[in-house]
Amino acid sequence: MAGRTVAVVGATGAVGQELLSVLDQREFSIGQLRLLASSRKNGRTINFRGKDIPVEAATPESFEGVDLVFSAAGGSVSKELAPKAVEAGAVVIDKSSAWRYEDHIPLVVPEVKGDDVASHQGIIACPNCSTIQMVVALGPIHREHPIDRVVVSTYQSVSGAGAGAMLELGAQSEAIVGGDDPEIDVLPRQIAFNVIPEVETFRPEDGYTSEEWKMANETRKIMHAPDMRISATCVRVPVYRGHSEAVSVEFSEPVSAAEVREILSGASGVKVVDDISNGAYPTALDAAGNDDVWVGRIRDDVSTDNGVVFWVVSDNLRKGAATNAVQIAELL
Amino acid sequence: MAGRTVAVVGATGAVGQELLSVLDQREFSIGQLRLLASSRKNGRTINFRGKDIPVEAATPESFEGVDLVFSAAGGSVSKELAPKAVEAGAVVIDKSSAWRYEDHIPLVVPEVKGDDVASHQGIIACPNCSTIQMVVALGPIHREHPIDRVVVSTYQSVSGAGAGAMLELGAQSEAIVGGDDPEIDVLPRQIAFNVIPEVETFRPEDGYTSEEWKMANETRKIMHAPDMRISATCVRVPVYRGHSEAVSVEFSEPVSAAEVREILSGASGVKVVDDISNGAYPTALDAAGNDDVWVGRIRDDVSTDNGVVFWVVSDNLRKGAATNAVQIAELL
Repeated sequence: MAGRTVAVVGATGAVGQELLSVLDQREFSIGQLRLLASSRKNGRTINFRGKDIPVEAATPESFEGVDLVFSAAGGSVSKELAPKAVEAGAVVIDKSSAWRYEDHIPLVVPEVKGDDVASHQGIIACPNCSTIQMVVALGPIHREHPIDRVVVSTYQSVSGAGAGAMLELGAQSEAIVGGDDPEIDVLPRQIAFNVIPEVETFRPEDGYTSEEWKMANETRKIMHAPDMRISATCVRVPVYRGHSEAVSVEFSEPVSAAEVREILSGASGVKVVDDISNGAYPTALDAAGNDDVWVGRIRDDVSTDNGVVFWVVSDNLRKGAATNAVQIAELL
Repeated sequence: MAGRTVAVVGATGAVGQELLSVLDQREFSIGQLRLLASSRKNGRTINFRGKDIPVEAATPESFEGVDLVFSAAGGSVSKELAPKAVEAGAVVIDKSSAWRYEDHIPLVVPEVKGDDVASHQGIIACPNCSTIQMVVALGPIHREHPIDRVVVSTYQSVSGAGAGAMLELGAQSEAIVGGDDPEIDVLPRQIAFNVIPEVETFRPEDGYTSEEWKMANETRKIMHAPDMRISATCVRVPVYRGHSEAVSVEFSEPVSAAEVREILSGASGVKVVDDISNGAYPTALDAAGNDDVWVGRIRDDVSTDNGVVFWVVSDNLRKGAATNAVQIAELL
């Protein structure tokens, strides 16, 4: 497939830009590259491997001759365009939530159940960023010791809400440092010097947010674990890049922190940074720009005989989005 | 006791300053006020109710004629001075961790087991800030439906680490906004635009931090619930004032979110802010400067039949420290 034609939909967004970096860094083989975005971005060019490539408007007719599509656009755009790309003969790796919950569409984190890509019928879905980093850690543990229940609290960076939220954190921080009032526009509350327990939209039926619902339901689908019980609290924090998660895992029998640490130390895509005697644990700043999922603070859960607690950090734009999509393409 | 003499130890610190505000706002009756601090602060004056009061060096001889001491100093100072104050005939309300775990010393949150103050032998201990706000919410629930287990993740503001940490967040934020490198001094990692899963010191024996250990052990003592199982993950976030907590509570029988919401709506010291259809939930910014413990995002735990999840926010310098101490004095 050295001569394959690759299209990136949403090429000008935060994830699209990161995707181009990851494609380049991982030396992904590309014949021709087509960059697609909303028509507002028409006329822009983006440099990739030394060439200035024009950004074209993404339309249903954009996929003629395209072999592989990375779609980093929103759900409604993906709902419209992905079937057109498949009709034109392309395989679509989609980052939006548009296709994740369709039974016939594989939802894939390569380290966990990479073989699932083989079952695709044109579209392969990428999970939500907060889910990906958690399942990279849960997957290898679950293979050795079936996980019964997960309680997770997140500390999610603003880049998960897009480039506008990153600009908003910067503008609010600058205003406050300068003694001015911050303006609130993209996120639901002031994010600078605050934390917001509202990521995505509220679900009136159960009081969870759609982000929290995703973490539970996507995890079950990715891991082929329909009975795993999962409750999440998703919180936005004033961090630019990198999501952190406090994860509490319960088994049906005793499993020690030492066993979990050993399993994770040999796990694909995981970097264990866990030496409290030297103050070693991962933070969002450490993980930014990196493809691994970092795990630390692994300890026995003192509130149950069958539990382990740990801290998971990853760059939500890399492994949480762009890197996971490119890894799926590498599996094809 | 209109003419009583009150001393404040640690009067120049973040908690000491807040204590003076709370004493004034709650119209606490004081005959004479003595302000004590480390000898470095000698010569400063602090205005209280229109009078400039000199700050004196805190020594073992400082408590002659003092009726009531609010101690907002650190543990080692309190260990030395509190017994001297008691010998001089004073009652000491202590904010440090020096006395909290002594069997004969009551550890009190007035809304939970206020009667415990009566058993004092001179010293009454105030819990840690992150514990106080959690037990104000757990207390009324536990009275109706015994709580079996608690899993909590915190989002703690830098003011919990003192005035130096607040200055550090400001200085780091200003440096980063201005394009400079931040300096790390007070907190173990960069806190601006980052979160740090290390509050207080690590315990080699179990991998928890002392802050996490406090949340478990203080809660059991305050609530007279020696069998309650509690696991905490304590995380510092770049917020100046106000701790937030994601709390997951399990009972031995089914209890609904609706029941918990009703209990908390009538609970002393609690303000329920929980209307997701209008985007209403508390954040640290909302709670700053306020004496209540704010609870929102109350929902059934989808990972168990017997659980409820909620979000607790409070100003750690007010209810988490100064207000709780003054409320104890009001009970005396």
